[in-house]
Amino acid sequence: MKALVANKLGEADVLQLEDVKKPEINSNQILVEVFATAMNPVDTKARKHGLGGMLNPPLVLGYDVSGIVREVGENARTKFAPGDEVFGYLSIFGNGANAEYVAADYRTMAKKPSEINHVEAAVLPLALLTAWEALYDRINIQAGETVLIHAGGGGVGHLAIQLAKLRGAKVVTTASSIASINLVRALGADVVINHRQDDFVKSINELTGGKGVSAIFDCVGGEVFDRSLDCISPCGRIATIVEGGSANPSSKLFFKNATVHYVFIGAPLMYDIEPERQGKIIEQAAKLVAENKLRAHVSHVLTLEQLVEAHKLQESGSVTGKIGIKVHN
Amino acid sequence: MKALVANKLGEADVLQLEDVKKPEINSNQILVEVFATAMNPVDTKARKHGLGGMLNPPLVLGYDVSGIVREVGENARTKFAPGDEVFGYLSIFGNGANAEYVAADYRTMAKKPSEINHVEAAVLPLALLTAWEALYDRINIQAGETVLIHAGGGGVGHLAIQLAKLRGAKVVTTASSIASINLVRALGADVVINHRQDDFVKSINELTGGKGVSAIFDCVGGEVFDRSLDCISPCGRIATIVEGGSANPSSKLFFKNATVHYVFIGAPLMYDIEPERQGKIIEQAAKLVAENKLRAHVSHVLTLEQLVEAHKLQESGSVTGKIGIKVHN
Repeated sequence: MKALVANKLGEADVLQLEDVKKPEINSNQILVEVFATAMNPVDTKARKHGLGGMLNPPLVLGYDVSGIVREVGENARTKFAPGDEVFGYLSIFGNGANAEYVAADYRTMAKKPSEINHVEAAVLPLALLTAWEALYDRINIQAGETVLIHAGGGGVGHLAIQLAKLRGAKVVTTASSIASINLVRALGADVVINHRQDDFVKSINELTGGKGVSAIFDCVGGEVFDRSLDCISPCGRIATIVEGGSANPSSKLFFKNATVHYVFIGAPLMYDIEPERQGKIIEQAAKLVAENKLRAHVSHVLTLEQLVEAHKLQESGSVTGKIGIKVHN
Repeated sequence: MKALVANKLGEADVLQLEDVKKPEINSNQILVEVFATAMNPVDTKARKHGLGGMLNPPLVLGYDVSGIVREVGENARTKFAPGDEVFGYLSIFGNGANAEYVAADYRTMAKKPSEINHVEAAVLPLALLTAWEALYDRINIQAGETVLIHAGGGGVGHLAIQLAKLRGAKVVTTASSIASINLVRALGADVVINHRQDDFVKSINELTGGKGVSAIFDCVGGEVFDRSLDCISPCGRIATIVEGGSANPSSKLFFKNATVHYVFIGAPLMYDIEPERQGKIIEQAAKLVAENKLRAHVSHVLTLEQLVEAHKLQESGSVTGKIGIKVHN
């Protein structure tokens, strides 16, 4: 089968189209004929530095998939049958969906809603799970509470806005490009801070009378994480999906009695810690999609052959919503 | 009335017995005739550096109290009447209970259980709330889960052991003195690591087959916090009640998808964020005490006049359980 392979770590052009062996499945896996996959920041980090040394080439990237089940492992037969249209996310320790077929752990897969096509489905799982776990399971955002979402126009951020609104929260978000500002407004963001024009700490202090917000979802990291420590309220919760931030949060957060959630949703499948819980979240998301309450915004659709371009686009930081990758028509 | 006053910040001998004005109460306060108070690490930190500059002398310390209600503010009348025996904790922004009378916010006070005396009651609130919020409200420890409690023989730690056992958790704890080891064993600790003889990270790895524990309650801080990052399991939660720890947790915790809770239970009263929730916890603790399911271990009982000695004892780090301060017979 065809696959895009990184035979060494490095810039986007290490990715090469090759003929590789079709994967074999174990009892927890289903073989999925890949119709679409998606770009996520984790792809570019795996390609560049093996996620801080966790992964070694050769690598087949692409940790989101939507497609059709062709074979079903023994443990997966209560849930899936050949011919099922499915979508879900894949372990970063296995070969990904930048290929014609992929072996997927059935526990993080769900039936694809018929209301959306494979590309629209493939862009959901990783980003959706990240937003869901951060906002619902970790921060536990409450109705009426205000949450600051950094980079609300991004792949995870624009789904987070929708989840926060579904929960009845008030959303303040940062965005700067016209496309992002339009998107976050369309998704119901209550306040948009143009972070290229305004300092978000100052804006939050003005909005809250100096109290800060009780929930911050950081999809940017680095200085944005560090400065978030200055506008989280006492008893607040910060969730970050980006490694880094130079500050030790303790000195700013201790007397605030606050919490930092580091959110990396690959961990349950990596360490086999209840991945089926994530499968249930994807099923709930599928229901919300079917009810027309949740949609991923697909700003670009490229092909497997255009993955080098897709990586460069993802790394440019200029993408609004998600990049979908069409593998099969 | 008599009070022990710190007219400047510094070592324990800055504390002096003085005659000061009896406090006046506001509508959210009750005037409590102090029968007992307790030592907590926060007293020594307030005396030494004003809690990192938050407090300025003159200071009357002592943030736990047990005593008898003498006056009742307007908002407190549905809950308390003169003559009630009460216990609870006090705002660090007001004068404390190292005095014959104290004005206490009624929302963090509860009726004292008749099964214990004032000293036994006074040593509970701050330490109990700290352990309760960390283990129950933040970590949300589960039945059957293993929690590592650092310094299980300490003021907070020995209450944490009891709360974890009441929830059905398995307790691994560190202790080194004979008194502490005996205490934690008596309280039901399942595994005791003598941290002067054994490296706790190594011990946890041996106990868990290298997986780490999913819950750590750090009552020590510094290097103990930093090294806890090496034995928390993926998807784990660490709660620390000590400012500091030199490491930025991000690099070790991000791919573990883990959480750090900074627990400073003074925040709700300082910032007026649902302090009545803490009052309800103290009421639940009183019920557990009445049912003989929870007890503070009082290793020393000193008097108001012996507070300088009590501070030195607290700072020695050698106390098992709590130091109670008797103010009135």
